[in-house]
Amino acid sequence: MDKDGMMRIGLSMRYLGYHMAAWRHPEVPADGAIDFQYFLDSARKAEAAKLDMIFFADGIGVRASDTPKGSLARDSKNAELEPLTLLAAIGACTSRIGLVATASTTYNEPFHIARKYASLDHISGGRAGWNVVTSWSQQEAWNFSRDEHLGYEERYERADEFVDVVKKLWDSWEDDAFIRNKETGIFYEESRLHVPHHKGKHFSVRGPLNSARTPQGRPVIVQAGAAEAGREIAAKSADVVYSASFDILSAQKYYADLKGRLEKYGRTADQLLIMPGLTTYVGRTRQEAQDKFDQLQELIDPLSGLAVLYSTLGDLSGYDLDGPVPEVATGPVSSIGEGLLDMARRDHLTIRQLYKLRASGGRQLIGTAADIVDDMETWFKEGAADGFNLCPAILPGGLDDFVALILPELRKRGLFRTEYASSTLRGNLGLQPLRFGD
Amino acid sequence: MDKDGMMRIGLSMRYLGYHMAAWRHPEVPADGAIDFQYFLDSARKAEAAKLDMIFFADGIGVRASDTPKGSLARDSKNAELEPLTLLAAIGACTSRIGLVATASTTYNEPFHIARKYASLDHISGGRAGWNVVTSWSQQEAWNFSRDEHLGYEERYERADEFVDVVKKLWDSWEDDAFIRNKETGIFYEESRLHVPHHKGKHFSVRGPLNSARTPQGRPVIVQAGAAEAGREIAAKSADVVYSASFDILSAQKYYADLKGRLEKYGRTADQLLIMPGLTTYVGRTRQEAQDKFDQLQELIDPLSGLAVLYSTLGDLSGYDLDGPVPEVATGPVSSIGEGLLDMARRDHLTIRQLYKLRASGGRQLIGTAADIVDDMETWFKEGAADGFNLCPAILPGGLDDFVALILPELRKRGLFRTEYASSTLRGNLGLQPLRFGD
Repeated sequence: MDKDGMMRIGLSMRYLGYHMAAWRHPEVPADGAIDFQYFLDSARKAEAAKLDMIFFADGIGVRASDTPKGSLARDSKNAELEPLTLLAAIGACTSRIGLVATASTTYNEPFHIARKYASLDHISGGRAGWNVVTSWSQQEAWNFSRDEHLGYEERYERADEFVDVVKKLWDSWEDDAFIRNKETGIFYEESRLHVPHHKGKHFSVRGPLNSARTPQGRPVIVQAGAAEAGREIAAKSADVVYSASFDILSAQKYYADLKGRLEKYGRTADQLLIMPGLTTYVGRTRQEAQDKFDQLQELIDPLSGLAVLYSTLGDLSGYDLDGPVPEVATGPVSSIGEGLLDMARRDHLTIRQLYKLRASGGRQLIGTAADIVDDMETWFKEGAADGFNLCPAILPGGLDDFVALILPELRKRGLFRTEYASSTLRGNLGLQPLRFGD
Repeated sequence: MDKDGMMRIGLSMRYLGYHMAAWRHPEVPADGAIDFQYFLDSARKAEAAKLDMIFFADGIGVRASDTPKGSLARDSKNAELEPLTLLAAIGACTSRIGLVATASTTYNEPFHIARKYASLDHISGGRAGWNVVTSWSQQEAWNFSRDEHLGYEERYERADEFVDVVKKLWDSWEDDAFIRNKETGIFYEESRLHVPHHKGKHFSVRGPLNSARTPQGRPVIVQAGAAEAGREIAAKSADVVYSASFDILSAQKYYADLKGRLEKYGRTADQLLIMPGLTTYVGRTRQEAQDKFDQLQELIDPLSGLAVLYSTLGDLSGYDLDGPVPEVATGPVSSIGEGLLDMARRDHLTIRQLYKLRASGGRQLIGTAADIVDDMETWFKEGAADGFNLCPAILPGGLDDFVALILPELRKRGLFRTEYASSTLRGNLGLQPLRFGD
């Protein structure tokens, strides 16, 4: 829970929503993912609703294998806009909402990333955020002249150094470095320039950044921080963590663990906000909510469902969809796959039931506004969350429902703002202003 | 000359204008280079004037040496916005003008570049252009984990392959690849996806691009193409060339040479527009124009002037500014330096006179609108230019003067449009629409 008693809420809006079949929903424009106006409309709604930020997850490649055969052509995740260009454009048409884009530390250079996000922060008047990720997929490696993606350790080691370099570049110039005195001809005060001269294992970057210190001091840093190495990077450098807990006990454990790591980096608990992902299906009645959910589940193409299971359980296309999940198949290909297999055994799930469970990825709440807000409030007040990263099943429908039904209930309970407190993302998140050198 | 008898005009608007002392001009906002609104205002003026495009040159580092001592702090080119984020933001607030940003092939990856410019083309409804450059400076190399910049041959070889890969990625999907049939569940037609599978000397990129084919087919490709290798890349792939000729004879020679190279790539002369850079100082009288020029020249700080000469002639700070350019000094450090030294000898120039000649870099015309348009018309009609890349000495003043005085004269003579012909940059430039596979 944040010190002002208000939760923070971001809107995650990649593709057409987070449900696999979102594009087939009758109210969703199927070409939205390459349509600037589509995203701008939702961003404006989110700003009118006083949400903290919009966020774009990202990947730099499309699925490489058509397994099971025919599933690739049914996949809507093949064409989208690039998040930084998209957010710069949205930033020009909004004035208060935060703008968080993902960029990989695996296939980028720190100078480019520091520069682009600094530019976004200048353009938007202090609303930029960088979601730091590493890239681990084969198809991304193939797009960047590599046969294999980097191993876990090297990837995170590189990410850690990458973030350090970016922060040094953002601190190249003090706030008042640029004097621009037309009389004397002095453009900047030499003592207020700090050339990074970074030399590390993965990067050698002299700097300085060719950009003034930004309105937020530096853009907000977001991280997912699930595994050990990611948690350390988050504890060291992140302002916000998008977590992915499915139940309150694991969420509380994660929350306590991550906040507990801050002290060794000289940071306090209020300097890092933990915002679990959340997909809501809300109705005026529970039945209405359930109907919305069921409608989407029915739209899942079986080949798409099998394709989702393929990455964790292998190819199940030879089996009866309404029969049991086979004990062996090609065998689970990951630890997530083992978990799924355990669940399928325990609950006697069919293949169809299993892929439907995986259809939207994150945690889902289905119910009335009171049901859903009860749950959110519990997480917020009982040490599981500082807010939520809303991942609507469909866009704009999922956002519209959230704004119309859930936000009023949150506000009635004093859990969410009615007006922005600041013009910067950092300010609205309730994070301390950064002084130079922080 | 273009086939419709109209010249094309772009606006180059990096920093605060192209004159070294622009920032000290009383009418120039000295902090403009990091101010989105400053650039947006000029972009809107350029669009209202029906110019073809705005363009941002770029570099990915700032001067590393403070020679002569104290000159670095007088250099206004230390902080600017990043062109792609800036142009995406401008694109969201304009509707017709082209948006051309520079990106280096030396320190980028083809997948990122293909994707970001495709995204800009989608966001802007078909107005994106990529100015292809290579990076050759020491300070840029130091920002990208290199001790030395790449040599000429390797740099251009990489650039050539880079452009090929980007074009392949842009052609990943045919125009009508995305069916998005909600009934059948088919999102795209498999036969209309073309996975590049590029394997070359510098890059190995599988693709496809995670973006649909763009409104222009592909973004417009711009190149400077001065040296031999650059001319070949331009002849093979560019739609527009920003050239830098100082006199009509060399411009005509360049024009004939470049257009003559097109045939071997199966292209015709109207598929490549050559637009020399041009800085105009225009007044209602010649004296008024000269006064505008002189006012800026007087604002050059001697240390800044010496710093400009440093990169070509070495450190001249120990000499009398109003004495002759010394015969030896530390010796010319480049072929440009040798040319300058020859000129200084021939015309008996002082050091101050020499750096003043270098103060705005490109070709300058000083005079009345009739004087300047006479010159532009001659270049346009006598095989030296298809249009011009306007590089105002100061922004917005240089643009305002161009619009107020020169454009009416151009229009009176039927040399420039009064209305946009198309909603895309390619269309306005008079280039043929691209069919898939072109």
